[in-house]
Amino acid sequence: MKPKSQIVNIPVYEPGKPIEEVKRELGLSEVIKLASNENPYGASPRVKEAVLAELDNISLYPDGGAVELTAEVARFLGVEPGQIIFGCGSDEVIALICRAFLVSGDETIMADQTFSVYKSNADIEGAVSIEVPLVNGKHDLEAMLSKLSSKTKIVWICNPNNPTGTILSETELTGFLDQVPSNVMVVLDEAYFEYVTDLSYPDGSKLLSQYPNLVVLRTFSKIYGMASLRIGYGVAQPEVIQLINRVREPFNTTRAAQAAAKAALADQEYVASCRIANAEGIKQLQAEFDRLSLDYFPAHGNFIMVNVRKPAVEMFQSLLQKGIIVRAGFGKYPNHVRVTVGSEEQNKAFIHALEQVLSEDKAQVQ
Amino acid sequence: MKPKSQIVNIPVYEPGKPIEEVKRELGLSEVIKLASNENPYGASPRVKEAVLAELDNISLYPDGGAVELTAEVARFLGVEPGQIIFGCGSDEVIALICRAFLVSGDETIMADQTFSVYKSNADIEGAVSIEVPLVNGKHDLEAMLSKLSSKTKIVWICNPNNPTGTILSETELTGFLDQVPSNVMVVLDEAYFEYVTDLSYPDGSKLLSQYPNLVVLRTFSKIYGMASLRIGYGVAQPEVIQLINRVREPFNTTRAAQAAAKAALADQEYVASCRIANAEGIKQLQAEFDRLSLDYFPAHGNFIMVNVRKPAVEMFQSLLQKGIIVRAGFGKYPNHVRVTVGSEEQNKAFIHALEQVLSEDKAQVQ
Repeated sequence: MKPKSQIVNIPVYEPGKPIEEVKRELGLSEVIKLASNENPYGASPRVKEAVLAELDNISLYPDGGAVELTAEVARFLGVEPGQIIFGCGSDEVIALICRAFLVSGDETIMADQTFSVYKSNADIEGAVSIEVPLVNGKHDLEAMLSKLSSKTKIVWICNPNNPTGTILSETELTGFLDQVPSNVMVVLDEAYFEYVTDLSYPDGSKLLSQYPNLVVLRTFSKIYGMASLRIGYGVAQPEVIQLINRVREPFNTTRAAQAAAKAALADQEYVASCRIANAEGIKQLQAEFDRLSLDYFPAHGNFIMVNVRKPAVEMFQSLLQKGIIVRAGFGKYPNHVRVTVGSEEQNKAFIHALEQVLSEDKAQVQ
Repeated sequence: MKPKSQIVNIPVYEPGKPIEEVKRELGLSEVIKLASNENPYGASPRVKEAVLAELDNISLYPDGGAVELTAEVARFLGVEPGQIIFGCGSDEVIALICRAFLVSGDETIMADQTFSVYKSNADIEGAVSIEVPLVNGKHDLEAMLSKLSSKTKIVWICNPNNPTGTILSETELTGFLDQVPSNVMVVLDEAYFEYVTDLSYPDGSKLLSQYPNLVVLRTFSKIYGMASLRIGYGVAQPEVIQLINRVREPFNTTRAAQAAAKAALADQEYVASCRIANAEGIKQLQAEFDRLSLDYFPAHGNFIMVNVRKPAVEMFQSLLQKGIIVRAGFGKYPNHVRVTVGSEEQNKAFIHALEQVLSEDKAQVQ
């Protein structure tokens, strides 16, 4: 039974340890996870109500076309319903785009340190990923343009970029889009869109009519606090959405997710409160990093990438021992960890643990 | 933006009308849906409790490896945890198998009237589907064997077959498996496994050690009554599961689905009660079809395919007007509708409406 040759070298997904297991193994009563950019305040109370209201429909298939939710999101964004496709997280929309558009030998262009799902899906389709080095943690748009060729099918832009947190301004983005040929798709991943407070930051959904080759990705997993429900979406021209729809399984989102997303979208007050709390959390963490003389990238999502001045995997392990889970293992940045902006208390606990590890290191050196 | 050439002719999924819309349009207060083989008794009460218990974790990503659920299913089936992969319904497992194994030019063999997702996914990968005519609604295993070639990558067997409901016996299946070369994968779709009461019916999970090229599919959408939660799984040798895992998105099932599946699996008493009620429903419907002199295929799932002696799409419309939704549009069987076995009352209402339509037709002819 011969698999596709290109998938043989793709690493098998290694599941992370559940918090419960970490607690048991390390004998800790509390573990704080700041590793997955989840919303520390959870979802809007309306989301819980919406899930409860679906409890009696567990045996019924979801609406495969997500008709009601599509109408709500379309109204919210000011686009047509035919311009939207939902996925099991925006992860799945990325997979669907690749499955619909990429063939062996195609080229895709992305940053050398960005969301890993672009490359893994391009790999599966046998496409070549050209990874363009970030400069100061930021997409190098000129260098990305220079890599365009007749083989280029898709360019991936993550704004804010995961894991560095940097953003491209509207001027930078449109200047770039103006130079990308119309037969090259640009996928603009705005998973952290709602967190950004910088006024120069563009709204990709407003650029769709101007750039028909643009696909914008959004998710309910981040500021909406619904990571467990698995629902995200893509927005583009109807012809593009129709093509992606051809490779979508009919029932790829749950009833609970569709109902919850409608409820979450209707509670923009909650979204605004999370955005404000996150901005305060960024300030809190940055002040502490400044005090500890640690460098970090400008943060615009709900996470900060900070240089801990030692191998990040060691810092990860040391923090884990103290009950704090962060993310390490970013090849381009071996001394950086990515920490999710938690609640004020979680941030304090993280800084406390970080400071302990750093001073323990210092003590060992002396 | 050029898509894969093979996807251009795949039909875009047309979402079915929500029950609420049917009610509004036709001015009906009640609509009975016997179209999607959902469990009329819903899920076990324990499932609802499990979903409720996950309400406070909505903002947290699911366990990407579904470690606890995998352990439970492995124990239940008597296989190793490494032999199991979960998907957003068994639909997604089918898609993952195709994405991992099929390349352009490969051949796959399936019945000419079976679950449509095998062919749509083979199409997406550019593989050729060889559709072997069912005989009396049943897989023609000899004819399928005769189609094996050096290009054959996968053979699909749906047991019971959807939409006809027929089964292959253990002797028939193992006789077939004995003749399939070990480099050809056989995917045995047992979505309706738990409904079957016929003693000759094989348990695919018990054949895995004997046939390393076998992949068995099961789902929580049918007898477990959890179609809305989207979770199904594949069971095979660990090396096969590892390959399929390479193309799986890390978080493809929700927390609620994983917790609910664990709870559902633990309540086999509920499963048994649904199996008994379904068997009684089959008898009820078959007795009525006999009375009306309508032919049907031997039914082993929770649905019956019945010859309504007129174009099925017309019967579909006539029944819809009376508030009953069934499934029509099976190319090979233009006069058959597939009706889900409902509760006793639902079955009565269906038969009542069916009889009305048939006698109205008779009146028109006379």
